[in-house]
Amino acid sequence: MTFREGLTRMMKIEIVIHGDDVGAVRELLGATGASGFTLVSGVGGLGHDGYHQGSLLFNEHDAQALLIAVAPEDRAVPLIAGIRELLAERPGVMFVSETWVSRPEYFR
Amino acid sequence: MTFREGLTRMMKIEIVIHGDDVGAVRELLGATGASGFTLVSGVGGLGHDGYHQGSLLFNEHDAQALLIAVAPEDRAVPLIAGIRELLAERPGVMFVSETWVSRPEYFR
Amino acid sequence: MTFREGLTRMMKIEIVIHGDDVGAVRELLGATGASGFTLVSGVGGLGHDGYHQGSLLFNEHDAQALLIAVAPEDRAVPLIAGIRELLAERPGVMFVSETWVSRPEYFR
Repeated sequence: MTFREGLTRMMKIEIVIHGDDVGAVRELLGATGASGFTLVSGVGGLGHDGYHQGSLLFNEHDAQALLIAVAPEDRAVPLIAGIRELLAERPGVMFVSETWVSRPEYFR
Repeated sequence: MTFREGLTRMMKIEIVIHGDDVGAVRELLGATGASGFTLVSGVGGLGHDGYHQGSLLFNEHDAQALLIAVAPEDRAVPLIAGIRELLAERPGVMFVSETWVSRPEYFR
Repeated sequence: MTFREGLTRMMKIEIVIHGDDVGAVRELLGATGASGFTLVSGVGGLGHDGYHQGSLLFNEHDAQALLIAVAPEDRAVPLIAGIRELLAERPGVMFVSETWVSRPEYFR
């Protein structure tokens, strides 16, 4: 028996952004129907590398946030595209990975 | 050489629950022998969708917690079943994913 | 269309350590060229099991930190080896998993 038994595959989207940009990501989540999320505030960190980012570099002292959203793949695809657009104009990174959940109806 | 070289596959179980329910999850972890965990307190967020959850909806202002546990697959299966039972009566979500660890004896 | 479309596979390395040991991990990240990271401070938790760890057990009241770094596989391999060495002398755990990112140049 594997751990996936009775669980449903979803995409977990983790976004590290400035605290000031949480509202923009939330609006996007709502617009794509992925209304649920988990927010870890007061996160620190250093910009992921430097010379490619120009003015989009995180400053270590900025208050950042880690926002976690989960969505089925068909809904994740437009959400990822939207977040990518948001991040084109803001510092931040997005990590997408596979996860399995017990109550898939929460994320549809 | 892949990153898995010398690492051992485990299940990472992430649970977002009310701060008040952390004790119940910890008891369950202890009962299944998965005594180690990491706890991120003071997490916020909005319930994963609304209309399916009824009274089990998170309120955004509730203080939630993100609890991370890691276990080998054989131990993860009963743990996942137990958490699912807990979550049947409480707001919360569980994400299960694959991860690889360097000191597997810590999680057995 | 899958969620991976346009995303690049990377390794996500999550490390739970004492707050006092964050500096040592950061130095290692810098030395391997993985300069970016996300840091969640003030994390709690109980040592991952007990009897194998001896003096390397977390005390629940210690202030721990969760450090998240992302790197391409070729860079992740030496980084994982270095973290393993660090953890041989300190309490802490490391979880490595696959993730997909939108801006791979940030992590190279």
